[in-house]
Amino acid sequence: MTIPSAFTEKIRNDYFELLKFETVGADPMKLRDCLDCAMWIKQWLAPMGFTSELMQAPDRLGTPPIVFATRPGTPGALTILFYGHYDVQPADPLDQWQTPPFEPTLKADGRVYCRGSQDDKGQWFSCLCGVRKFLAKRAGAGSVPTLKIVLEGQEESGSGALAALAPTIRGKLRADVMLVSDTGAAADLRPAIVAGLRGVSHFTVRLEAADHDLHSGEFGGIAPNPAQGMAELLASLHNPNGSIAVKGFCDGIEEPTEEERNAAESAAMSDARYEEEIGCPPVGGEEGLTITERNSFRPTIEINGIHTGYGGPGSKTVIPANALAKLSMRLVPGQHPDTAMACVARHLERHTPRGMKLFIEDLSGEAAGFRLPLASPVFRLATYVLEDMDPRGPVFQWDGASIPVVSVLKEASGATPLLVGWGQPQDRIHSPNESYGLDQFVKSMTWGEKILGALCD
Amino acid sequence: MTIPSAFTEKIRNDYFELLKFETVGADPMKLRDCLDCAMWIKQWLAPMGFTSELMQAPDRLGTPPIVFATRPGTPGALTILFYGHYDVQPADPLDQWQTPPFEPTLKADGRVYCRGSQDDKGQWFSCLCGVRKFLAKRAGAGSVPTLKIVLEGQEESGSGALAALAPTIRGKLRADVMLVSDTGAAADLRPAIVAGLRGVSHFTVRLEAADHDLHSGEFGGIAPNPAQGMAELLASLHNPNGSIAVKGFCDGIEEPTEEERNAAESAAMSDARYEEEIGCPPVGGEEGLTITERNSFRPTIEINGIHTGYGGPGSKTVIPANALAKLSMRLVPGQHPDTAMACVARHLERHTPRGMKLFIEDLSGEAAGFRLPLASPVFRLATYVLEDMDPRGPVFQWDGASIPVVSVLKEASGATPLLVGWGQPQDRIHSPNESYGLDQFVKSMTWGEKILGALCD
Repeated sequence: MTIPSAFTEKIRNDYFELLKFETVGADPMKLRDCLDCAMWIKQWLAPMGFTSELMQAPDRLGTPPIVFATRPGTPGALTILFYGHYDVQPADPLDQWQTPPFEPTLKADGRVYCRGSQDDKGQWFSCLCGVRKFLAKRAGAGSVPTLKIVLEGQEESGSGALAALAPTIRGKLRADVMLVSDTGAAADLRPAIVAGLRGVSHFTVRLEAADHDLHSGEFGGIAPNPAQGMAELLASLHNPNGSIAVKGFCDGIEEPTEEERNAAESAAMSDARYEEEIGCPPVGGEEGLTITERNSFRPTIEINGIHTGYGGPGSKTVIPANALAKLSMRLVPGQHPDTAMACVARHLERHTPRGMKLFIEDLSGEAAGFRLPLASPVFRLATYVLEDMDPRGPVFQWDGASIPVVSVLKEASGATPLLVGWGQPQDRIHSPNESYGLDQFVKSMTWGEKILGALCD
Repeated sequence: MTIPSAFTEKIRNDYFELLKFETVGADPMKLRDCLDCAMWIKQWLAPMGFTSELMQAPDRLGTPPIVFATRPGTPGALTILFYGHYDVQPADPLDQWQTPPFEPTLKADGRVYCRGSQDDKGQWFSCLCGVRKFLAKRAGAGSVPTLKIVLEGQEESGSGALAALAPTIRGKLRADVMLVSDTGAAADLRPAIVAGLRGVSHFTVRLEAADHDLHSGEFGGIAPNPAQGMAELLASLHNPNGSIAVKGFCDGIEEPTEEERNAAESAAMSDARYEEEIGCPPVGGEEGLTITERNSFRPTIEINGIHTGYGGPGSKTVIPANALAKLSMRLVPGQHPDTAMACVARHLERHTPRGMKLFIEDLSGEAAGFRLPLASPVFRLATYVLEDMDPRGPVFQWDGASIPVVSVLKEASGATPLLVGWGQPQDRIHSPNESYGLDQFVKSMTWGEKILGALCD
């Protein structure tokens, strides 16, 4: 293994120090680790000219702080906002790790194994190493943008504090472009620009009928059955062809342009590759549309779980008293989360089976979807930089997934999001033995250095 | 409290001894108690002229034995088979018992509190006390029927051993009339004859799609969702009016006669009483039919449980890899359990959503439903006896529930079932503080004595 020269010993030492903090943001027992890590980041940023503060939403005391750092730029230059998160997923199942999860280990395959080595410490740290290089080169000569950095500690558990804080500090967050280092590259590390994300919203549906579980013989044909009622209620959300049957839900959806559609289709995996990846035919969603249309440009209403009555071994002849379902929606531009939810709530109310009471609860995580115009100056600059880094140039991706905090920051800062990341499937983020390749690290550094240059000149 | 004279000290002592055996047949730790109880029953029956053996199905060793006892009768007399069970429900929750669950306690309200005081030790023991009285009176004078007694130890956990054994000992079981002491009387202890029971069958339905749970953003609109698929599949089993949509399922159903319908309706509780009892409007089953029709004379396909995906606090944006549902059917005369199941299986196969694999598993507990002709001689005799006991005379009931072992014994013995019991809602069977009133005990004794006389003369 040859260690790339850009991955200096200093960078390596800092990176490994950062990784050793056990920043499981969702675990209250790890709050100390999160505070220590935030302090470490503050100190790491100081020599680069950043002034940092650790922030908390007023009603979220006792949660990991948000590192907010600023560095003034040349008067008249753009303001760039960086977003990343220093919290990580829990390490379990611990017995499946080949090296200790918080002991960064550079193996002969050129990859650093550690929880957070990629998601997201590795991604933003490498990008900021590039920023440092850019700043060092410009020291005393040439213009530099005003830089703002937001590194939060709750992304893996919902970004609650940042979502609460952002609308209250719009002035602080205001920026022209928002660089996000938390996404993937295309196959073989070909650069990718995320040109759109779907929005999201979660909620719980409950049906109640009898005030206790009933004997299915004694009361079968008499008592309404919420298990059956829930099946009917949830089935009513879709038409037989897989399209969404909720009145008004799809009203106003912005269709992709021909250019977006072509770009998305040209970057799409084949149906066969999807089938291999998921282990069944990729026939979800509306019939007659391509996978890319269904995933990137159409909303979904997914049932994430149903729980009612008996589920153990053998049988129990019961009519359950109630039924619970967890649902989430993915939203596309033109849909407002509140309006979409109102349509679904009205549909559920109208379709509530006889004799049952409906409850819609735990509405949370609401974020709108967005798509950015391909012809925007920011995308043109990014394309220029990425073509310079890789002759294949970037692909554009419209992720079916959501990064709710990006929608929140976009809204609060007024900035155009530029999501370029260097993740690869073999990084196994969220799983045991997470890793980040030094080649990815260096790509991310180069990207951070070059995009700042391009945005300044 | 006046203790009825028929409830002698000898009867009381024997009854309490029987109740003290902790015969939780489903609990392997209580096998010794079940064996001891079976031996006790054998010894208790001996002075009445019964020859008893403890039987086990060949493949069910290590389960509670079946007490099989016979007593030869006058040549040419009828053969009467008694059925009851000496096993009881588990006693938990223990902390809700006001007296120890296996310490029979006669309270000032004239009720004996103990697990099994009614279900079913109390019911068959009191009836057999009546039989003893009958035999004592006829000693040396008058004809007596040939008597056969089956007391099993697994009724509360499915009657597995008896169901396996019965078809192999048809000759031993052969009888003309089968007396079953395991049902309830009508309101205010008015006598009731169960003239029909629904059959039953249980099974599990599974749907599989992806080989692992998927991210609902990344794969929403791509991967088929078994939670949604299960909802659609189960919803397809019924029509919007609540009738069963499975082709062929209801073919050949025997409609009740006008007489049966009138008898059933005249004994029915009001809708308002049902609503009070279950805590929601009694609007299950097919629209436009009365509660009695829906519960007594129509089959059901009930969903006893659905479990798939996430169900905990908050949200988890997952497309589950699979979904599981537990179902049971209640069957009426004219439906064969195998044919009904074949129709349901074909329906489920035809409606399996795209991209998913269907599995139908754990088919068990199959028993056909039956209805006995109201004009049968056995019912006429029983009515005569019960009118003699209570001027109101008996009501006829067609229970929506099932006693699978009755179907099994009916089939193996060729006997006409005569189900008369003296249970009341306040007995709280299966619950803490189960009890049986001395008035019920004496009614049951009288019934046992008088019906034998009527069947003999």
